[in-house]
Amino acid sequence: MRIGELARSTGVSVATVKYYAREGLLPSGERTSPNQVSYSDAHAHRLRLIRAMLEVGGLSIAAVREVLAEVDSPDRTVHGMLGVAQSAVTRAVAEPNPEGDWAGAERAVEELVRRQGWVVKPENPGWKALVQIVVTYSDLGRGDLLSLLDEYAAVAGRLAGAELAALARVPSVDGKVEGVVLGTLLGDAAMSALRRIAQEDASGRVSAPVEDQAL
Amino acid sequence: MRIGELARSTGVSVATVKYYAREGLLPSGERTSPNQVSYSDAHAHRLRLIRAMLEVGGLSIAAVREVLAEVDSPDRTVHGMLGVAQSAVTRAVAEPNPEGDWAGAERAVEELVRRQGWVVKPENPGWKALVQIVVTYSDLGRGDLLSLLDEYAAVAGRLAGAELAALARVPSVDGKVEGVVLGTLLGDAAMSALRRIAQEDASGRVSAPVEDQAL
Repeated sequence: MRIGELARSTGVSVATVKYYAREGLLPSGERTSPNQVSYSDAHAHRLRLIRAMLEVGGLSIAAVREVLAEVDSPDRTVHGMLGVAQSAVTRAVAEPNPEGDWAGAERAVEELVRRQGWVVKPENPGWKALVQIVVTYSDLGRGDLLSLLDEYAAVAGRLAGAELAALARVPSVDGKVEGVVLGTLLGDAAMSALRRIAQEDASGRVSAPVEDQAL
Repeated sequence: MRIGELARSTGVSVATVKYYAREGLLPSGERTSPNQVSYSDAHAHRLRLIRAMLEVGGLSIAAVREVLAEVDSPDRTVHGMLGVAQSAVTRAVAEPNPEGDWAGAERAVEELVRRQGWVVKPENPGWKALVQIVVTYSDLGRGDLLSLLDEYAAVAGRLAGAELAALARVPSVDGKVEGVVLGTLLGDAAMSALRRIAQEDASGRVSAPVEDQAL
């Protein structure tokens, strides 16, 4: 198909298609005559994947380029793909508050991971983020919220298992690789959206003013 | 305490303390003499809460101001607080792709919500985000990933229940209100971090290259 049809069928403007191509996110089309370049369904699919990462996953162009380089690599593995997708999606941890109990938080995360029986490296991008959250809870004197982390952890483990099982049912290698990217990026967005809905339902069942309610 | 001690004890610079005060996030201290303003433990706590929302929750100054206005409102309710915290934390949905099957996605979300027995308004910020995710999955021909949404939903419901139970154990009203804010903002961040760790554990158990593995 020509670039106009490619743009129409994916809901992306022609200018944006050219921009993604210049930025190296989209492979060139096939030149079929001096004035004409032809694009395939693979280009359309790639464009939709780019849109998903940018608009739903909230990644930057630079992060999308990094993820796609790994998607296209001949040496890609599920584990390697996951590392790249995870780094791309995880917000950098802010400058640590020097007053916080970082050593204590580190120990708390180690113990949480051990209780779940998880085998992970401390360089996991989630690990640092979790230590910062524990420091923040402690700073605010909200040790009570720490008890929720085991509940979150159990649920995260259950989801990771379901995600890997879904991945196992995907026949093609390209499909598996894309599944890791979408599972990481869109999975986070989906979980966050569903938490919004579940929280409204739960809190709607207790609707009196804070001051009056037993809650 | 003086502003220097307030800054030191919260790990925030004096300039930043003054900036938050100018932006209306932090109430003024008490003027105890023409050249001296005194701050209390409540100011220190408010500063830590602001840091948590900005640095861990990733909110903008404007969003923090909006959440704090509701926190300080005499008419606050758990349900109202939740709405404000949810709107602050939910990323705006991108310009819809006109080629996508939005009506179909809307129906899929309605059915998902009905299967969970949830009572929520379609204006819930998570609802729109979820519709966009469903459209994206369909665009990419990944109907297989839709089946994961029921699993995510069940888990989100379980977490909302655990969060409300934790809230019920908080004795003070201020503590409850702060708990809603932290549960929404930091809860999302904690869930995302724990997913990173659980996913690494799950995928580490299958470490062969994608091309070779049964996965």
